[in-house]
Amino acid sequence: MSEPRLIALLSGPDQPGIVAKVAGWIFARGGNILHADQHQDPEERIFFQRVEWVPASGTGTEQCREEGEAFAQFATSELGMTVRVTRSDVVPRIALFVSKIPHCFHDVLLRAQAGEFHGEIACIVSNHPTLRESAENYGIPFHHVPIGSAGTKERADSEAEQVRLCREYDVDLVVLARYMQVLSADLLNRLTVPVINIHHSFLPAFAGGRPYHQAYARGVKLIGATAHYATADLDEGPIIHQDVSRVNHRDSVSELTRRGRDLEKSVLAQALRWHLESRILVYNNKTVVFQ
Amino acid sequence: MSEPRLIALLSGPDQPGIVAKVAGWIFARGGNILHADQHQDPEERIFFQRVEWVPASGTGTEQCREEGEAFAQFATSELGMTVRVTRSDVVPRIALFVSKIPHCFHDVLLRAQAGEFHGEIACIVSNHPTLRESAENYGIPFHHVPIGSAGTKERADSEAEQVRLCREYDVDLVVLARYMQVLSADLLNRLTVPVINIHHSFLPAFAGGRPYHQAYARGVKLIGATAHYATADLDEGPIIHQDVSRVNHRDSVSELTRRGRDLEKSVLAQALRWHLESRILVYNNKTVVFQ
Amino acid sequence: MSEPRLIALLSGPDQPGIVAKVAGWIFARGGNILHADQHQDPEERIFFQRVEWVPASGTGTEQCREEGEAFAQFATSELGMTVRVTRSDVVPRIALFVSKIPHCFHDVLLRAQAGEFHGEIACIVSNHPTLRESAENYGIPFHHVPIGSAGTKERADSEAEQVRLCREYDVDLVVLARYMQVLSADLLNRLTVPVINIHHSFLPAFAGGRPYHQAYARGVKLIGATAHYATADLDEGPIIHQDVSRVNHRDSVSELTRRGRDLEKSVLAQALRWHLESRILVYNNKTVVFQ
Amino acid sequence: MSEPRLIALLSGPDQPGIVAKVAGWIFARGGNILHADQHQDPEERIFFQRVEWVPASGTGTEQCREEGEAFAQFATSELGMTVRVTRSDVVPRIALFVSKIPHCFHDVLLRAQAGEFHGEIACIVSNHPTLRESAENYGIPFHHVPIGSAGTKERADSEAEQVRLCREYDVDLVVLARYMQVLSADLLNRLTVPVINIHHSFLPAFAGGRPYHQAYARGVKLIGATAHYATADLDEGPIIHQDVSRVNHRDSVSELTRRGRDLEKSVLAQALRWHLESRILVYNNKTVVFQ
Repeated sequence: MSEPRLIALLSGPDQPGIVAKVAGWIFARGGNILHADQHQDPEERIFFQRVEWVPASGTGTEQCREEGEAFAQFATSELGMTVRVTRSDVVPRIALFVSKIPHCFHDVLLRAQAGEFHGEIACIVSNHPTLRESAENYGIPFHHVPIGSAGTKERADSEAEQVRLCREYDVDLVVLARYMQVLSADLLNRLTVPVINIHHSFLPAFAGGRPYHQAYARGVKLIGATAHYATADLDEGPIIHQDVSRVNHRDSVSELTRRGRDLEKSVLAQALRWHLESRILVYNNKTVVFQ
Repeated sequence: MSEPRLIALLSGPDQPGIVAKVAGWIFARGGNILHADQHQDPEERIFFQRVEWVPASGTGTEQCREEGEAFAQFATSELGMTVRVTRSDVVPRIALFVSKIPHCFHDVLLRAQAGEFHGEIACIVSNHPTLRESAENYGIPFHHVPIGSAGTKERADSEAEQVRLCREYDVDLVVLARYMQVLSADLLNRLTVPVINIHHSFLPAFAGGRPYHQAYARGVKLIGATAHYATADLDEGPIIHQDVSRVNHRDSVSELTRRGRDLEKSVLAQALRWHLESRILVYNNKTVVFQ
Repeated sequence: MSEPRLIALLSGPDQPGIVAKVAGWIFARGGNILHADQHQDPEERIFFQRVEWVPASGTGTEQCREEGEAFAQFATSELGMTVRVTRSDVVPRIALFVSKIPHCFHDVLLRAQAGEFHGEIACIVSNHPTLRESAENYGIPFHHVPIGSAGTKERADSEAEQVRLCREYDVDLVVLARYMQVLSADLLNRLTVPVINIHHSFLPAFAGGRPYHQAYARGVKLIGATAHYATADLDEGPIIHQDVSRVNHRDSVSELTRRGRDLEKSVLAQALRWHLESRILVYNNKTVVFQ
Repeated sequence: MSEPRLIALLSGPDQPGIVAKVAGWIFARGGNILHADQHQDPEERIFFQRVEWVPASGTGTEQCREEGEAFAQFATSELGMTVRVTRSDVVPRIALFVSKIPHCFHDVLLRAQAGEFHGEIACIVSNHPTLRESAENYGIPFHHVPIGSAGTKERADSEAEQVRLCREYDVDLVVLARYMQVLSADLLNRLTVPVINIHHSFLPAFAGGRPYHQAYARGVKLIGATAHYATADLDEGPIIHQDVSRVNHRDSVSELTRRGRDLEKSVLAQALRWHLESRILVYNNKTVVFQ
């Protein structure tokens, strides 16, 4: 499976024949569809599609890029779709934002080492120096960017530095791996790339701070974790993936926290994997995930 | 296992030696402990215990009753515990409250027929006549009690009739099997028996009405169901059991509803089974469930 | 969604352009694809597709039938595919085979009543009279066909009667809802319709008889259920769906049996739902399930 | 919770009064029971108990050791029980056996770093040098012990060296973290400590080699992992914990392997945690796990 592949994510007003036109365009140019999946929102009358194909044999990297551009042009102008095309021979670059909590940090890096992601951890950005040595053991550049209080000059400088690092490392995605700071609307805008966050509760239950304490106080019998795209509304972004784990009256807050770590790791990794494989479309603050 | 057994649920201020004193009391009178489980809330310093034992051999029904009373007396006066003692030879009686939605109704009755519950469905009370014929096929008395609007004379009459029926049938428990009416604080007080409700969401997410519509709108990736004791605060009572099911962007509200039915059935049945086996203690609006 | 829809399941040697040709054929005749999903087995080089579409508007039942035949003709002769076309306006008919155990029987019938299946329970066939009255309460014809010992004249007569009933009721599917008899290879051949069975273990573990006893003896920590197409090799047919439930050392065989009932019900219902929605293709004794 | 605690695991012929006698003995000497849980096998008439207590206040490490010995003496001679007593102030020492596969290795070590285990990784023993550098990053001694073919002098030497290392490091437990060699019956005997293995299937399904290939070939819809005590009969030892993950027809063997890694990590870690907290009793090739 070493030939370069193209993956297109389309969305737009539903109309008859889109599937046939997309497949026809690819076939007419000698491409071979490997996967195609689509979805309609029958109420909103929106069409969504993910199509993955090998362009005509003999197509090299440059031709593959051109073919992707041609497809995007076709889907936009002839089908009226919004489209994003990615290529299997281009590996997305990721900035991993962390604080002191190490479990998601190690988990993402070990999975990256094991080849689980179609992506590369380009750099680590942290508001604490805690994980510097570990980062260096993994051979990943580590940048300590202390964060001032919200509204201060220091905060503005910190955010400017975060934006600068993301540009310097040319990242396509920011992952908040238990990064314990809220990203301001302004910062989210200036990053210009998607940001995936892991929240340690089954949203919308227990949004906000200290969700395991909230869960303990309410006496729920399941705890959860939620991976979502970060938006200016904290904990309100489009949900990508969720999972839960059974707990009982014997579980203290620290036991909930321990169990929650396993959820946070697996839920974040799955969301990251799907994003990097171009499986996710966002609309109406929800996600379509083509598995 | 046909000898009558006693089950005691104790709770109260923690102090050294309770386990030894309880076990010692039972052993001294010739009883044999089958199960004993306890829990401490280390912050609140409360002790909880469930102990199940066979009194001295040859003990008949009457002696078993007396032994239970003696134990309650001992636990109260000597250990300072709140205690509830039940007997395996006394089968709890249940009033099943339903409306038009049949799935939990059938599920509870079929499980009762299959012998899954240590309990008997004594009567069915409904604000609609819809399920009368089905109830009669199961051989269970069905009472249609229409419900007037909240605050009206009709509502007061309805509630009085519901209380009267629960007394007439001498019920120990009311189960709201998708009964689509809120029980007033006054009604809950007058029933004097526990009331178990099934809510069709993973509480505290999506409390209130139309939870599957709320879940669809938020784009969650799991839907849930919650069995809890009904309290005057709607959807805020102590949670007994919860479960979830995975959904995705393809699932319409009606598909969520269909999947939710399976959750509601299994979660309600499990909560009911635990309650009827005297496995649940309530404190601080939470439950201890001795499994 | 009341317009009739066509669903085609295709499989055959993989080749470039199948997706485009299928979509092109439908589009050229004015059809609108609602769902299309495909799969390739890269080792065996087999292509699989499920495509669901609304034929040109104004198409009635008769035209829908003709359109389905035209598609089948096209897919066979021009694409070299094996194809099966079903229509949303034709409701499959099911023979439910049962013995004495009632839980899957009730579960399937209540789900059918609730409209969960694109199918109709045409008749019930049982080797015991036990469930006759319940069947009649559901309003479904019940046929008691006692089964002689394997190899006897009585057995041959029983099987002939089972085949005759399936023809008389014109069934498209046989469901073994805890039917406690093995279907001979000869009977399976003569039925000429698929047969879905529910086995009460996580196959291939604990094939054969008394799987809960086997599970108890081995001390497993999860029990399972498996829905599969019945084949002449007992418990070896293509697996459609499986699920498991956690158990522990406290669970006796009878407790495993009780928990297993819930698994058997939900796993069988899901397999049945998928089959009736034409979501399943079988190859190499495995299934492709288009969800 | 810094006072030293004692934990006793008892098993033996069931008889009335054991619970009372155990609790009475502890109470009479000023101890305070924190947890006590028991189980009876009603068919085999065996009694099992786990009891955890704080000895009389002011008890130091030495007294705690003596109290444990006194309890063991009491339980053996007066109750006829087999008993094992452990202390919270004694941290079990673990030898981690690995080969080249790193995921369970990293998972166990990171959890150990995070304080998830009541135990210390004393040394790492491997038949390959692959993980030496990683081991050193964790600060754990690494020993490369190449393994000769079964039956050879080299194999005997290797096993002797493994036994020697376990003695040198004074380990209480050996964990096979995807160690790709079978331990001979002789080696198991000479180690004299329990050995926990993780098998990458839902045993008893797919025992032996290449279980993910077996699972793929059979077309199962769930894959699993099983942690068990190693015995001379490969993959037949007492099962401690199992879990499964849903897969479908799209999942290749390498995808099953990737998903399986997550199962193997979490299942092994849970089994290890329970063992280190003295929660497991073995009998009849099964386990009682007091959670």
